Amino acid sequence: MTETASDLYEGLLNGDRRAAARLISMVENQDRSVRQVLRMLHQHAGRAHVVGLTGSPGAGKSTLACGLTKRYRDAGLAVGIICVDPTSPFTGGALLGDRVRMQELSGDPDVFIRSMGSRGALGGLSMATNDVINILDAFGKDFIIVETVGAGQVEVEIVKYAHTCVVVTMPGAGDEIQAIKAGILEIGDIFVVNKADRDGAHRTLADLEMMIETKPGGDDSAWRPPVIATKALDGEGIEELEDAIAQHADYLRESGLLGLKTEQRMKAELLEILNLKVSQAAARVLDEDEEGRELVRRMTARELDPHSAAEEVMEHLLKREVEKPGT
Amino acid sequence: MTETASDLYEGLLNGDRRAAARLISMVENQDRSVRQVLRMLHQHAGRAHVVGLTGSPGAGKSTLACGLTKRYRDAGLAVGIICVDPTSPFTGGALLGDRVRMQELSGDPDVFIRSMGSRGALGGLSMATNDVINILDAFGKDFIIVETVGAGQVEVEIVKYAHTCVVVTMPGAGDEIQAIKAGILEIGDIFVVNKADRDGAHRTLADLEMMIETKPGGDDSAWRPPVIATKALDGEGIEELEDAIAQHADYLRESGLLGLKTEQRMKAELLEILNLKVSQAAARVLDEDEEGRELVRRMTARELDPHSAAEEVMEHLLKREVEKPGT
Repeated sequence: MTETASDLYEGLLNGDRRAAARLISMVENQDRSVRQVLRMLHQHAGRAHVVGLTGSPGAGKSTLACGLTKRYRDAGLAVGIICVDPTSPFTGGALLGDRVRMQELSGDPDVFIRSMGSRGALGGLSMATNDVINILDAFGKDFIIVETVGAGQVEVEIVKYAHTCVVVTMPGAGDEIQAIKAGILEIGDIFVVNKADRDGAHRTLADLEMMIETKPGGDDSAWRPPVIATKALDGEGIEELEDAIAQHADYLRESGLLGLKTEQRMKAELLEILNLKVSQAAARVLDEDEEGRELVRRMTARELDPHSAAEEVMEHLLKREVEKPGT
Repeated sequence: MTETASDLYEGLLNGDRRAAARLISMVENQDRSVRQVLRMLHQHAGRAHVVGLTGSPGAGKSTLACGLTKRYRDAGLAVGIICVDPTSPFTGGALLGDRVRMQELSGDPDVFIRSMGSRGALGGLSMATNDVINILDAFGKDFIIVETVGAGQVEVEIVKYAHTCVVVTMPGAGDEIQAIKAGILEIGDIFVVNKADRDGAHRTLADLEMMIETKPGGDDSAWRPPVIATKALDGEGIEELEDAIAQHADYLRESGLLGLKTEQRMKAELLEILNLKVSQAAARVLDEDEEGRELVRRMTARELDPHSAAEEVMEHLLKREVEKPGT
C-alpha cells in the first residue's frame, strides 16, 4: 500500500472527514491504489444500516432523505447520504438539484453527503456505489441513505445493496403506479406516498395497498410492506417512516434474513469485482497478446463467432493473464 | 442444436419473419438454445449498417426513425427498427408510445419493428440489443435503426454497437445541450435539432455548431459531425439526415475506420459473453461448491474481503467450473 493510501486508511478509521472524501474521490477517479484500502476496510464495515430511496424524479426523495437524517441526528446517530444519478456523468464535485436543501445538514460533522454520477464507474455505477457505502460504513455511519434519481434498471441494481428499500411515489401518478407494478413492487420493503396533501392521495394509497395485498408470492413473507403518507417538506410522516425502517431492521435481524442479505451482498460484490478483473484481463489479451489479436481478426472476418472466441479466451488465454502481477 | 432452433435458423435465412420474431423472443426469454443459433448466424451477419438514434425523451426520435425508414423503403432497402427502453421492464409484446406512428410501417414485410425493455436482459440490455441486431442483420436488413428512449449511461452503452450515432435534440433545450456537452458530444457522428420551427432553433443550432467546433480532440478526425435541422413530423430535413448517414458510411469505409469499428464491436461482444459466462460459473461456485460456500461464509463474517475472495474464485474454482459441459 502506498504511503498516501495507508494514511487515508488510518485517517478514515480515526474519523477524518477529508480522508473519507479523498477515498471516495479515488473510487470515482478509478485510482487503483484505493483497492488495497477497500480490502482492509472490509473488516471494519458491516455495522451501518443501508436504506435505499428510489422512485421517479420529483417525488421528493431528497426531501425525505433530509427529513430522515434530521431525525437520526436528533437521536445522536451519524448519517451518510449518497445521491446517485445514473443519467448524469457528473460526480462528487457537482451539485445535484436538491443539494440546496441539504446545505444546512452538510455543516454537521456527523453527516456526510456525496453525489455520484455515472462517470468514474469502473465496473459499473453499482460497484462504485457499493465501494462508497463500505467507506462510509467503516467511517462509522450508523445509517447510510442511498438515494437514486430514477427508477430504472440501474437504480434497481444499486438498491440491491440496501438493507431496507423505500420506494417513493406521489398522488395521481397513475403511470408511476404502473411502473411500480411492473418492476419496483418486488424490491420495495416500504412504500411512501409523498405530497400526500395533493388530490388523489387516497386513491394512490389505496392502489398501493391493493397491489401489495395481491402481490404474487406476497404471502410467503412475514413482512408486509407498509404504505406511508408523507408531506416531506413539512416533516409530516417522517416519524412513521423512521419507525417503519426500524421495524424492518428488527424484522431482518429476528427472522435471520439479515445474514442472508449480507451473504447476497457479499456474493454480488465478489461477482462485480470478478467481472471487472476478467474484463480488464481479457481486454489486455485481445489488444496485446498475439493469439488474442488473431481471435479478433478472425471474428471480424466472420470466420469465428464471439461465443467460440470467448471460450478460447476463457480456456487458454485468461488464466496466465490474471496471474500476472499488478492485476 | 435442438430441432426447433435448427428450424428457426433455416427459417431466418429463408426470410421467414416469424422465425426472426421467435428468435428475438428467445433472446428476451433467456432461452439457452438461442446461443447456438447466434453462433451460426455470425457468419451471415455483418452487412447491415447500424444507425443509433439517441437523445432525450420527446425529441422526436421515433418520428425520425419512421421518416428515415420510409426513405430507405422508397430506395428498395430493407429496414429493422429496435426501440430500446432501459427504464421499462416491458419487452417485445408491449407497445411503446410512438408505436402508433409506426403502425403503417409495420404492415410492410421489409420492415421489422421490435421494442425491447430491460427485462430479459441476461448479461445486460446492451448484449440483448446486440443479439437482436445480429439476428436482423443475418435476416437481411440493409439498415438497422436502434432507437433508445433516454440519453443516460445505458443508452451510451447500446449506441456503441452502431456504425453511425445520431444525437437528437430540440430547440430551447438548454439543459439538454448541457447534457450533450457533458457526455453525448463524444458519441455523436451526426446531430439533429428536431422541431426546428420552434423558438430558439437558431440558437440551439449555433450552440451545437460551436460545441463541435471547440470539441477537444475534434481536429484529429477527418469527420466533422454535421448539425441538421429537421421537422420530422412534416418530413422536413429527413433527406439531409439520410444523406449525412450515407456520407458517414462512406467516410467509415474510405478511412478504414469501418474495420476498426467492427473490431471494437467484436471485442465488446466477446467481453459481454465472457462476463456472462464467468458470472454464471462463479454464481454456481458460490452457491453449490463447498469451497465457494466457505468463501461466502468468511466474507459475511468479515474474515475475508471480497477482493481476495474474487482472486480465490478466479485462481482455483472457476476454471474447472467453466469446463463443465453445458456452460
